[in-house]
Amino acid sequence: MEIPSKHIARAVEQLASLPSIGKRTALRLVLDLLRRSPEEVEQFSNAFTTMKNEVKICKSCGNISDAEICSICANPRRDHRLICVVEDIRDILAIESTASYKGIYHVLGGVISPMDGQGPEDLNIDSLIKKAEENRIDEVIFALSATMEGDTTNFYIYKKLKVYKSIKVTTLSRGVSVGTELHYADEITLSRSITQRLPFESTFQ
Amino acid sequence: MEIPSKHIARAVEQLASLPSIGKRTALRLVLDLLRRSPEEVEQFSNAFTTMKNEVKICKSCGNISDAEICSICANPRRDHRLICVVEDIRDILAIESTASYKGIYHVLGGVISPMDGQGPEDLNIDSLIKKAEENRIDEVIFALSATMEGDTTNFYIYKKLKVYKSIKVTTLSRGVSVGTELHYADEITLSRSITQRLPFESTFQ
Repeated sequence: MEIPSKHIARAVEQLASLPSIGKRTALRLVLDLLRRSPEEVEQFSNAFTTMKNEVKICKSCGNISDAEICSICANPRRDHRLICVVEDIRDILAIESTASYKGIYHVLGGVISPMDGQGPEDLNIDSLIKKAEENRIDEVIFALSATMEGDTTNFYIYKKLKVYKSIKVTTLSRGVSVGTELHYADEITLSRSITQRLPFESTFQ
Repeated sequence: MEIPSKHIARAVEQLASLPSIGKRTALRLVLDLLRRSPEEVEQFSNAFTTMKNEVKICKSCGNISDAEICSICANPRRDHRLICVVEDIRDILAIESTASYKGIYHVLGGVISPMDGQGPEDLNIDSLIKKAEENRIDEVIFALSATMEGDTTNFYIYKKLKVYKSIKVTTLSRGVSVGTELHYADEITLSRSITQRLPFESTFQ
């Protein structure tokens, strides 16, 4: 498939660089953009550079935010000693929509995945351990995806945390079906798995 | 689903404005973009404004092009008296990839679709009729999608062309299954439907 305009070809290439977007789909999307007014296309383009330039990472939890500290960490009515460990912002959105969690979050930015060349040093783990050291945590809830990589990551962090005897380490109850990515779970299942969270040790059996 | 960053929310909204991209998918794509370097995001954004500013419409056939006249219309080895009527550039790419067509194209930019508020006056039809008037056409091949809208458009143009007795009007042989959009057809089916094209009248029976 050789596109006769190099400008179109470049736009198609950029869209097709996104995950799960193929070249045919990308071309369909580009033709849709091409039918819009120059102002609309400008607006479309600017949204991404503005986002990249303006979005900050919350200094406390690693969440994506417009300010130095995200709105959840900045909320005094949240329980700051209860920390839910998640992979990315989509998991926060999923848990927040259940309205059954009152603690704060800790965003790892991924999971340990040797296949993708992602090790523990690539994740936002140290700042969580530092909070534990400073005795600022009562409980850590693991809410990573129920996959091999998620389990590996849970166990890695668990080993680092268990030296701090006073910290309770729990994990979402496995109402979430195994192999499912967290943000695709339905709200009821997810809500139940937060209220019925289990001691991490119980998942060893 | 309330996204805590308005910049992210805006980028998600823009991506979700594209056809067949939902909000969840858009968020996944935006998070992928966010992991890239500022230069890469800049490149991504610029591709669309550059495309919108630079892409031209071929004065002869209505195809998308980087020059005033597209590379197909500018090719002297093409048969300029044989014109294949298509909906958009994707159909040209599909037919070109069969390597079984040596004429030129005429791009309508859509089909007659009252449901979408698109009438014949919104399509690039007049310049085709003008070519017929100026006796610059031997044959017109209809290669629109085999849908109700495609058939309606074929018939509308056929009525305008039949006053020019010397012009042969043909249509792709219906090897392309009914209800399928043209650019999804496989190359063999499409190639056969070009070589076995039928007199338009034969589709009335």
